[in-house]
Amino acid sequence: MSGEFVSGLKCRLCGKVYPKEALNFCTEDFGPLEVAYNYEAVAKSFTRQAIESRPRTMWRYRELLPVDGEPTVGRHVGGTPLIRADRLAKALGLRELYVKNDAVNHPSLSFKDRVVAVALSKAVELGFETVGCASTGNLAGSVAANAAAAGLNAYVLIPDNLEQGKVLGATIYGAKVIAIQGNYDHVNRLCSQIAFRFGWGFVNVNLRPFYAEGSKSMGFEIAEDMGWRIPDQVVVPMAGGSLIGKLHKSFKELERLGLVSGPVNTKMYGAQATGCNPIANTVKTDALRVKPVRNPDTIAKSLAIGDPADGYFASQLIRDTGGWSEDVDDDAIVDSMRLLAETEGIWAETAGGVTVAVARKLIAQGKIDRDASTVLCITGNGLKTQEALIDKIARPVVIKPSLAEFEALVGAESPELVATEA
Amino acid sequence: MSGEFVSGLKCRLCGKVYPKEALNFCTEDFGPLEVAYNYEAVAKSFTRQAIESRPRTMWRYRELLPVDGEPTVGRHVGGTPLIRADRLAKALGLRELYVKNDAVNHPSLSFKDRVVAVALSKAVELGFETVGCASTGNLAGSVAANAAAAGLNAYVLIPDNLEQGKVLGATIYGAKVIAIQGNYDHVNRLCSQIAFRFGWGFVNVNLRPFYAEGSKSMGFEIAEDMGWRIPDQVVVPMAGGSLIGKLHKSFKELERLGLVSGPVNTKMYGAQATGCNPIANTVKTDALRVKPVRNPDTIAKSLAIGDPADGYFASQLIRDTGGWSEDVDDDAIVDSMRLLAETEGIWAETAGGVTVAVARKLIAQGKIDRDASTVLCITGNGLKTQEALIDKIARPVVIKPSLAEFEALVGAESPELVATEA
Repeated sequence: MSGEFVSGLKCRLCGKVYPKEALNFCTEDFGPLEVAYNYEAVAKSFTRQAIESRPRTMWRYRELLPVDGEPTVGRHVGGTPLIRADRLAKALGLRELYVKNDAVNHPSLSFKDRVVAVALSKAVELGFETVGCASTGNLAGSVAANAAAAGLNAYVLIPDNLEQGKVLGATIYGAKVIAIQGNYDHVNRLCSQIAFRFGWGFVNVNLRPFYAEGSKSMGFEIAEDMGWRIPDQVVVPMAGGSLIGKLHKSFKELERLGLVSGPVNTKMYGAQATGCNPIANTVKTDALRVKPVRNPDTIAKSLAIGDPADGYFASQLIRDTGGWSEDVDDDAIVDSMRLLAETEGIWAETAGGVTVAVARKLIAQGKIDRDASTVLCITGNGLKTQEALIDKIARPVVIKPSLAEFEALVGAESPELVATEA
Repeated sequence: MSGEFVSGLKCRLCGKVYPKEALNFCTEDFGPLEVAYNYEAVAKSFTRQAIESRPRTMWRYRELLPVDGEPTVGRHVGGTPLIRADRLAKALGLRELYVKNDAVNHPSLSFKDRVVAVALSKAVELGFETVGCASTGNLAGSVAANAAAAGLNAYVLIPDNLEQGKVLGATIYGAKVIAIQGNYDHVNRLCSQIAFRFGWGFVNVNLRPFYAEGSKSMGFEIAEDMGWRIPDQVVVPMAGGSLIGKLHKSFKELERLGLVSGPVNTKMYGAQATGCNPIANTVKTDALRVKPVRNPDTIAKSLAIGDPADGYFASQLIRDTGGWSEDVDDDAIVDSMRLLAETEGIWAETAGGVTVAVARKLIAQGKIDRDASTVLCITGNGLKTQEALIDKIARPVVIKPSLAEFEALVGAESPELVATEA
């Protein structure tokens, strides 16, 4: 049905065009490939009215998601809330703040369900029966869950230091989960070899051009939920550096197709942890090339990619849009996880703490405009990274089932009653 | 705005009518109070067309949710997926099966966000600044999260044996979390005393009539997503026994208002754990009164209510509709959690395992019709009850980042590759 909308794959460096197959790099210059659309065809059916009449999932934007037929995997993904965050705005000193909450994306509670829905729907179209991924955690759960629902075999490769919730959140689905002695970059290289050797569909290797496009649905939802407006400023966590670029692309596509009034002048802000800050460091030092971080060390494990595939493009985009990038340490991450939870009732994983903490830092630096509309992107759920909090949050006070004991506790205004740092 | 729709509170035993205030029992006979509606007023605006034009949250059914003005708490709650579960259906031997997946309800990943959204919106209307709850875990997180977002003070009382994810999932929001040495029934009694003594709004004590109505939104969504049809059979986990009754009530209300064609003949099936089966036991022994379970002992801690407030009504409803009730042991619970994950990519908490395992048992007993449409209600997320799985699921195989090691592993078809029981 939507086969007419995707014209092929195109090298981001030299522009060479390839057919829409499982291929992720240009054979001429090894540049990354990106999906190319026939926007004239898209424009005919991609209207506000048509979109609003469709079910509230990521597939309401189907003309700009590179699946040719009906999606067969992840049909319910997306449609997550955009929260008007007035209490957090007050704490941060902002006028108009929104939180895009993909911590409650389904099925696996991270934005990765968006990219996996596209990649696995495409994998089915291309005839793959075995799929896989290299993951820092969220992708593992998403590939495992969505592959299980689709009846695909799944190989999930992860670094051997991940959080319990992320490991269990992949094995429970019956995926073949293999822990690699090393960091994400080791895992990723091995996956490239495996995809080539076994001919399997690795969502973030040979299916990467299709996969990455799924992230655009997050941007489309933000714009639609703002009343078909584009925010002035967006703060995005960066691991491989793909999401920030795809969000910006989604805004530009809406502008190009006339669904929002342009010009789009959104400033893109990239958030990283100090223990793994290759892209932030590139921006802050005004370097041309991204210098890999050899040994990532941060509680934000989902962002611990030392050699980010899209790091170059992300740093360029941040510069081009007039945004900025920063990184924050583990204590700041935990503090901001708590701030987000206490003000907006959203429990994000450590990466969400990175996003909020970097926003705080950039506001203090004057790099984020307090009066411009701002969106913070939350990409994963706090239940997945409990290890980061367990020693930092006070345990409950324990009392007997007695009103007298409760009165003694409350009457004394016991400080232990309030959850504070241990 | 919707103030005209709720006429008052009504005793479920003697029918005495009370004003819509924070009161949960009849002063004549201590019968539980229930919200009474003016269905003639409701019928004027509660149409399929009106509902379908509203945002996809629980509030699209607002005429039948007892909040007088605009909801102020939990505005984004609900709208969870109803999954057509063909792979699980095949495994169970059913023809038409759906899973209602409230494991991805937001903000706190359980169906409790529905009841809390109503209770706290009502609490704000009634002028409460401090709210609270007695919880087996999911309610704790939901009250804490939603109260934080609304800027309300929250006291959350729990048994002292809860899972880490549920404890952390309440404290993170800054709620005052107090663990009681005892089981849920001890906690619940203390909360009744506290609500009375301090004049606070306890969602499942003095706000219970409003609170409980929130569950109906799950039933409304099931019917709408089935194309305004009512399922023939519904399997529901039972703790206090409220949800099963409210689901049935939601179907009857849709019938009464002409949104579905009647008559509604849905058979209601109640699921419990063998370690805490007061309602199932009542049904199975054809008893009139519910005999409390003194010392609940099950991994399904969220269902561990030994003296269920709505146990009598639940057992009556199950009988009246021609349904049945069963209970399952811990091993069966874990097996069914895995079955659900491996077939449909849904990771439910232990209570979800109870629901699937009881469905399996009732199918084997011939009590569930294999050819009738069936809905399984999943009410909470698997990330919250990791303890139940951690020793039952194989850990990942660990290898070096080497293609040769991977080939040796896969080539040998090592049984450790597949997640099997340890």
